[in-house]
Parts: sequence; C-alpha cells; structure tokens
Amino acid sequence: MRDTYVLGVSMTRFGKHLEKSLSELAYEPIWNAIEESNIDPFDIGTAFVGNAYGGLITGQESVRGQVVLREAGFSNIPIINVENACASGSTAFNLANLAVAAGQTDIALVVGVEKLFCDDTAKSLQALSTSSDLEREGKMGILFAGIYAMRVRSHMEKYGISKEQLAQAAVKNHTHGSLNPHSQYQKQLSIDEILNSRMIVDPITLYMTCPLGDGAAAVLIGTREMAMRMKKRPVKVAASVIGSFGNPGISEHSIAARVSREAYRKAEIGPQDVEIAEVHDAVAAIELYLYEELGFCGPGESGRMIDERETWYDGRLPVNTSGGLTAKGHPAGATGPAQIAEIVWQLRGEAGMRQKKQTPTIGMTENGGGNVGNETAVVAVNILKGDP
Amino acid sequence: MRDTYVLGVSMTRFGKHLEKSLSELAYEPIWNAIEESNIDPFDIGTAFVGNAYGGLITGQESVRGQVVLREAGFSNIPIINVENACASGSTAFNLANLAVAAGQTDIALVVGVEKLFCDDTAKSLQALSTSSDLEREGKMGILFAGIYAMRVRSHMEKYGISKEQLAQAAVKNHTHGSLNPHSQYQKQLSIDEILNSRMIVDPITLYMTCPLGDGAAAVLIGTREMAMRMKKRPVKVAASVIGSFGNPGISEHSIAARVSREAYRKAEIGPQDVEIAEVHDAVAAIELYLYEELGFCGPGESGRMIDERETWYDGRLPVNTSGGLTAKGHPAGATGPAQIAEIVWQLRGEAGMRQKKQTPTIGMTENGGGNVGNETAVVAVNILKGDP
Repeated sequence: MRDTYVLGVSMTRFGKHLEKSLSELAYEPIWNAIEESNIDPFDIGTAFVGNAYGGLITGQESVRGQVVLREAGFSNIPIINVENACASGSTAFNLANLAVAAGQTDIALVVGVEKLFCDDTAKSLQALSTSSDLEREGKMGILFAGIYAMRVRSHMEKYGISKEQLAQAAVKNHTHGSLNPHSQYQKQLSIDEILNSRMIVDPITLYMTCPLGDGAAAVLIGTREMAMRMKKRPVKVAASVIGSFGNPGISEHSIAARVSREAYRKAEIGPQDVEIAEVHDAVAAIELYLYEELGFCGPGESGRMIDERETWYDGRLPVNTSGGLTAKGHPAGATGPAQIAEIVWQLRGEAGMRQKKQTPTIGMTENGGGNVGNETAVVAVNILKGDP
Repeated sequence: MRDTYVLGVSMTRFGKHLEKSLSELAYEPIWNAIEESNIDPFDIGTAFVGNAYGGLITGQESVRGQVVLREAGFSNIPIINVENACASGSTAFNLANLAVAAGQTDIALVVGVEKLFCDDTAKSLQALSTSSDLEREGKMGILFAGIYAMRVRSHMEKYGISKEQLAQAAVKNHTHGSLNPHSQYQKQLSIDEILNSRMIVDPITLYMTCPLGDGAAAVLIGTREMAMRMKKRPVKVAASVIGSFGNPGISEHSIAARVSREAYRKAEIGPQDVEIAEVHDAVAAIELYLYEELGFCGPGESGRMIDERETWYDGRLPVNTSGGLTAKGHPAGATGPAQIAEIVWQLRGEAGMRQKKQTPTIGMTENGGGNVGNETAVVAVNILKGDP
C-alpha cells in the first residue's frame, strides 16, 4: 500500500441553512478543496459521500451522493454512499484513503454533508434516534444525552471529577468556537453561564451539548507526488482506523481506547506524540473521559489536565481548537471531514486566531457514532503528520 | 494488490417476509456463508452492509449494518454501511473486495438486505422513488417503469425489435425462476400470459417487471489460500468495477457498456469469453438492450439472440438462470450479493435444475441502480472465474 496525503480541505460554516439543499451546501467546500489542491478535477477517480439522516430529513435516500455531486459537476465518477451515524464522514474518509492507498484511484474526494434542521424539530430528533438500534434500545426510552450522562457520572464518581471541571471543557470549546469563523456558536461563555444553563440530563447542561446543525465539508486525498506539487505543507495520512462496538456497558477500555491504540501502532507513534486533536465532544463533558481513553493522560487525570489548561489552544495539547462539536456544531455526516480540515489547517499553520503557537506536526481526529458503548457504536480515528 | 476469492455465498428465498426484521432476514445467509467457507468466523475483519431503503421503510437508518450484524453475533468488527440504490449490495461487494485485495483485512463479509414490503404499499413506492434525484426528476412525474419504457421503445424502433421478443426474455426468466428454490415467483408463464398481463407502461406489462420483495444474501471474500482450503471449486474475483452516470439521455453507449468494458479489461477477457451472466432485468424487456450494451451480441442483434434461445439455461450464454430480478425478485440491497451467489453456484456446478450443462468457468454480474441513463445512475459489474 502506498502513502496517502491530504491535498485539500474546506468546509461551510456550520449552522442553520434551511434555504440550502444538500447539494447546494456541498458545492462550495468541494470546489474550494479542489482549488487549493492544485489538481485537475478530471483526475478525481472516486467520490465517497458521508451522510447520516438525509433520507429521513430531506427525503432523499439511496443516491444522496449522486445528487450532491451532480450540482458540483461530478456525475461520471464512481460514487459511494456511506453511512455510519455521526461517523459517516469519517467512514467515507477511511474508505477514500484505502482506495488511494491501494492504488485503485489516484485522487479520491470525500464529502460529508448533513441537514439536521427542517421545518419540524420532532422530525430531526426522530431521525437522530435512528442511530440507536430501534428494535432494542428504541424501546428503552433512553436518548443519547442520557447514555452520555451515565458514562459521565460513572467517570465522575470513580475519579472525583467535578461538575466545574466538566464545564471547563465547554468553556474552552466555546472560547475556541469564538475564534473560528466556521463555528456555529461564536460566543464565549463563562463557567457560570454553562453550569446555570438548562439542565438536559444531570450533570449535562444545555451549553455542554452540541446543537442541531447543517453543514458540509470536503477533503481530497492523493499521492505523495501530488502533495509535493502543492504550495502548502504536505500532510500525510499516517493512520486511518474504524472500529465498531467495544466492551458492553460502561467499561474501562472502551472502543475509543481500542481503536486509538491500533491507530498509534499503525502510525508508529504513541499518545504522547500527539500535538493537537479534534475529538467527539457531542457533550463537552465526555471530552475529559476521552482524554483518558485516547491516552492523552492516565486514568482519572483528565480533571487535572483541564484545570491546568493543557488542552486550550495555547496549551501543550490543544483539543478541539475548532470549537468541537459543542461550539463548532455537529451536522453529523460533515463532522469527520471537518475535523480533518481543522487538523490540516493547524499542521499548516493556517488556523488563524486559534492556531497553536508552535505549529504542530502530529494531529489526530476521533469521531464517534451510533450508541456509545452499545452495539451500534462506531469510532473512527485518523492520525495526520505534517512533513518535516 | 493480491488476488481475492469468493469463499462462501448464501441467500434467503426472496419474497414477502413481513414478520421478519432486517437482522432476522440476514441471520441465516450470514451463517450459511460462513459455514461453507470453512473459516473461523472470528477471522472476519470487516463487514460491508448494503441496504437502500431501510431508513424509509423500517425506520432504522444510520447504523443499519450494526443492527443487522448484532443479531448474527458480529458487533466488534468494523462495519461499513453502504448505499447506492438498487446497486447497494454490489457496492458493498466492491468495497469488501478492495479491502481484501489491499490487505486491509483477510476476510470481508458482504451482506445485502432489504425489506420493501410493509403495511403500506404507498410507503414502499415512495421509498423507491428516492433513488431518483428528488430535487429535479422527482418533479417530472416520471417513475422508473416510464424511464425504462422510453429506453426500450427507442431500442425497439431503432432495430425493429418486437414486443414478442421482449416478452420472450420474461418467458425465459419466469421459466428459470420456476427452477430456482430461492425465487420469489416459481411459475412458468406463456408468452400470451405475459403480453396480456396488465399494461404498466407500453410496452412493459406486469409480468415483465420485478415484484416488490424482501430478502437477504451474504458473501464472504478472502484470499487464495483460504479458497484452496475449501472443499469447493475456488472462484476468483477477476474484476469488480463501479461506475456512475454515463452519457445523458438515451445513448448508444450507456454506463453499462462503459463499466463492462473496464471490467473486461481488468479481467483480461472479452465479452465473447463470458459463459454465464446475471444482469439487472428490473424490467425483463431491458435485458435485450443489456445483451448489446454488455457486448454479448452486436447492436440490434439481441432480438435474434433471444429468438435462438442462446440465453436460456441450456443455451450458449445463459442469462439470469436465477430467474433474474423479474422472477427471482429484487429486494434492492440484496440483489447484488444474490447475483454473485447464483454465478458462484453455476461455476461450482451447484445450480441444481437450472445448472448450465457444461459447467462454466467465467461468469459475470451486472447490477444497476438509481435512475437509468440519468445522473443518479450506478452500474456495478463483477467478473468471476472458477479455477481450472
């Protein structure tokens, strides 16, 4: 298998785009990514399109990628529609990377696109609920926030992590969001505002959770030679790993731990080598748990890590400089490619106000989907390396 | 890239399975395919699940593969959900083949599964319509049968092909279906019964079209070494190609022509080498058109080909010995893997009453999806070779 590189990245601002169709949302990121890639668009061999809820929200099922790419002018290439709940876009990235690595195509286009807003919020929530196993979990009456809350509470009790520490992750991500023009929320919030916002499921409050959102992101993957022809720093895909499920229930070593270990092994690095990361903070409180799962710190040390501001954009290991799902937003299928975009921008020193001071060389994305800790769970981890 | 082989195949009978969920439908084919593969099920590295309309018909979206595989006992492997309209299952097969060829996994599981029947036929038809571009074609009021009819009429007028010749393809496929225990329809029909059945869109009558159906099929892909350990004839995947769209409108060289040429090139054969084929006869009348597109005969010669019974199970180049979509049925996501199953059975000499007399060595599948000839069209072609 040959080395693969990220050539171009682009995304819309996440937010409410009621007036735009899936194809209209995807148009700009696709062509922006092509433009910065310095490639001939006719050389794109295959497209992988990630979208989770289009069938239920827009009514367009079954050939979503064809419809999305038609608008952008790509109808003649093989188009693969991929779905894996909130990790749909990362799954598309993983397959596109495989197609280029295996030499099946020289350039693959990844598109993640989602419209969660519609004229009926109940319809949006109903669509989101289909990322659980409806036959089993659907009957239990536990929604995603409840599942996250159970995990967070178990983590708090085990290690004495406080509500204030959980809220600090949200403070950080909202601050990061205020520095990111692509972010859905761009407003700094105080710890009191976060803790005193409406309680969703104890200990998770409104401003600790990601909003409904629409958006699109595009990534082009190609060969080393192509990356060298760009005028930007080449960014290599050092590892791309997907896993499903993990241990049942609330366990020490979840699927994120397992998948990230495999990614570290493939990239020939350890967690201590990661200099910047985007992780799946569907609720900000889960971020602390993920620090431990991904090996950024030892078990129970995540509270200290946030207290010492290590994961702020000006810290040792910035996490979610984009604002994360909490502030940047989470249009499900678009989230994975948007995480890739943020890491690529950081590795190139193009992240503007939220840029890590010392431009990092090794970055990581972790994107989850399905029912965390249950049998529909999906985790995708990517490790990107900037050329020296 | 290394050679890949089909290890095991299995399918349910296609038909009405109202009482069964997607996961219950898929259970038997998955375990039957594993059993005949002579592998350790724990060695399966990745699963690719094709389903087109689950979100709209059963309500389960977004993590359909996880739900389907949970029942069969596979939760811990990476699961990729793939959608490409009626070619969803073939797209899953194509990606699984890539994953094994590239060495990403040694054994990949392909599952195609679909439930089209539900308590409300209007809902089923609505779901099927989402394989068009709803933003554009959805407003034109032309359904699939109408699109097929335009193509068929154009073909008839250009080459003087008669209604009787079109109907003969349906007579053949219903006869084949009567010899296949997996077929939804197992009743021979006379040419008069077919021509006099209810007119859908002139010249397409009811018995020339595929029925609504539920069903599942599974295929395991592995390495040559694994195939050699089986007690059955090893079947190599000589080519697996997907294409989208083609020339606009009703053209001489459609997407099926283009994709099949690339498959022939990869398999290092020509159309004259194909000894058996399963093709996408969503309406039986389109089969004649496909003979020409796939190069089984010259332009305008398909009428003669069916008159001379060349494509009957006892002919020179049997087509759709399974009964095809017309008689075997067409639960969209299951169709591609079911086509693979039929060809594998034929290459192994296991096709029972419908077995080609001289066991073939080279077989082909052609599976279409989306809006034929329009910008959502998808075609997948696979070429399988039995070891000498």
